[in-house]
Amino acid sequence: MGEFELICRFFAAAPCAQAAEGVALGIGDDCALLQLPAGEQLAVSTDTLVAGVHFPASPDPFLLGQRALAVAASDLAAMGAMPLGFTLAITLPQADEAWLQAFARGLSQMAQGCRLALVGGDTTRGPLSLTVTVFGRLPVGQALTRSGARPGDLLCVGGALGDAAGALPLVLDQRQELGEQAGYLLQRYWAPQPQLALGLLLRGKATAALDISDGLLADCGHIAAASGLALHIELARVPLSPALQVIAGTAARDCALAGGDDYVLAFTLPPEHLAAVQAAWPATVVIGRAVAGTGVALLDDSGAVIQPPRAGYQHFGSSGD
Amino acid sequence: MGEFELICRFFAAAPCAQAAEGVALGIGDDCALLQLPAGEQLAVSTDTLVAGVHFPASPDPFLLGQRALAVAASDLAAMGAMPLGFTLAITLPQADEAWLQAFARGLSQMAQGCRLALVGGDTTRGPLSLTVTVFGRLPVGQALTRSGARPGDLLCVGGALGDAAGALPLVLDQRQELGEQAGYLLQRYWAPQPQLALGLLLRGKATAALDISDGLLADCGHIAAASGLALHIELARVPLSPALQVIAGTAARDCALAGGDDYVLAFTLPPEHLAAVQAAWPATVVIGRAVAGTGVALLDDSGAVIQPPRAGYQHFGSSGD
Repeated sequence: MGEFELICRFFAAAPCAQAAEGVALGIGDDCALLQLPAGEQLAVSTDTLVAGVHFPASPDPFLLGQRALAVAASDLAAMGAMPLGFTLAITLPQADEAWLQAFARGLSQMAQGCRLALVGGDTTRGPLSLTVTVFGRLPVGQALTRSGARPGDLLCVGGALGDAAGALPLVLDQRQELGEQAGYLLQRYWAPQPQLALGLLLRGKATAALDISDGLLADCGHIAAASGLALHIELARVPLSPALQVIAGTAARDCALAGGDDYVLAFTLPPEHLAAVQAAWPATVVIGRAVAGTGVALLDDSGAVIQPPRAGYQHFGSSGD
Repeated sequence: MGEFELICRFFAAAPCAQAAEGVALGIGDDCALLQLPAGEQLAVSTDTLVAGVHFPASPDPFLLGQRALAVAASDLAAMGAMPLGFTLAITLPQADEAWLQAFARGLSQMAQGCRLALVGGDTTRGPLSLTVTVFGRLPVGQALTRSGARPGDLLCVGGALGDAAGALPLVLDQRQELGEQAGYLLQRYWAPQPQLALGLLLRGKATAALDISDGLLADCGHIAAASGLALHIELARVPLSPALQVIAGTAARDCALAGGDDYVLAFTLPPEHLAAVQAAWPATVVIGRAVAGTGVALLDDSGAVIQPPRAGYQHFGSSGD
């Protein structure tokens, strides 16, 4: 039995294979077959996580399973897609049954939460790394791209920022800290919750959207460039969790602005839709607005431009598309 | 500019992005968007190649680009799917522009040959490995699975077997051999041609199909198990290329039976379809037949069962699904 079959067996509790809606043929043949309702498109995204680059060299396998899928599923949220399934390509130095069992439990738990079925994959021997490709579906013309923002739109985020960057010293064991606040940040790092329901809610309302993986300022730069306008962010409105403020202290804002790996949505919204979005997703926070111009500017309470923190805040260097 | 953008720039000569049929949105947003004609399904397969496991640690990047895509595209051929696009997740120790340029040329050449558009991907830093996820489309109910073979069907292959295994000593530089025969085998290893046209031709004719990646005997075992019958292979009918016979000598048959990485289709065919398939794909060879029973048996000229060669012929250990 190959390791992949092993993962699949451990995965049996989850919506692993054929049973899931939209999966006409699951694991075990040359290809999986996915079925879309008439008038819908398939959304696809691929993310790789490498040991020692995107996570510590010897991670807890349960947490790694959760995180690997969450990172990929967040791209479906950013597009406004309904989750369908995923493939997993896993490269492992050796097949350790206990490790695989814990990994599969973590993956399975995230998959159930996201309603994503494992439809196929590949297992190979080599240095530990994971490539997850996620599939979602959405009606033609309703995808949330990065290019539709218009001057006058509000710039919003789907929740507090910077927790994952604030957790990094704890993840790296550079700092031992127990207690509720540290536990909260570690959870936010290892098991980010893809904002899939928010993505669905934003269809037909948001003019542009993405998930924050490179850091707020860098990712807002992507929207500004793709939409051909400027985004102004009011520093005082950027939401910070109480846990981040306790653990990171004065560095909390830099974590929120330049730290990556939050997997919170950032989106532009015509003002008339704000009330409906906030009613259905109360964590929504307006942090600025879209204006004519180029680039991203950070403003203080008086509206003056502030020098942003330098990019390159210590992190594992996630890069996605 | 990230390495992935670099690959994409080098890839500009190929049908890289939006232009390709069926690709509604290509590289550059959170997800790519694929569009299927009404009544069609999406076929998906993922393959990982790891340096030092599936190919030499310091491969020629042009050849690696060809091979990485060919291995994955072969799964579309095995399913009878029409090629649509692919994502590439590439992990590299460092970004070397000359290396990437050559890699992209190889990838691009194979992509054009297969009519596959690059729709997205991810680039990460780490030990060299590649994960390619391919997408194809096919009418609902026409996929070539492994489970439909029936007693009385002919067992066929789409061409000569064993060339990739025969090339391995040359690939590994364990044996220096120049000349036409060696060049032919190396080409078969590094740039296998996915039998996509054969897969399309077999729709509605073949009862089961797969691509030979683990070796003829092992892969026929997959069809036998999935279809609940036995496959009898007549050793004398297994096709061998002249080049393999010259280079591998008496080991040529073992290469054909147990060597992997050929990416030639094996399929079961009701006898009434043979003439049409051979007319359109002249390399088709009947090597045996499906009968009631279980497992795979190898027969000599008199019809007696022969002990097959031991599995585990020296190779890099490709494993796919």
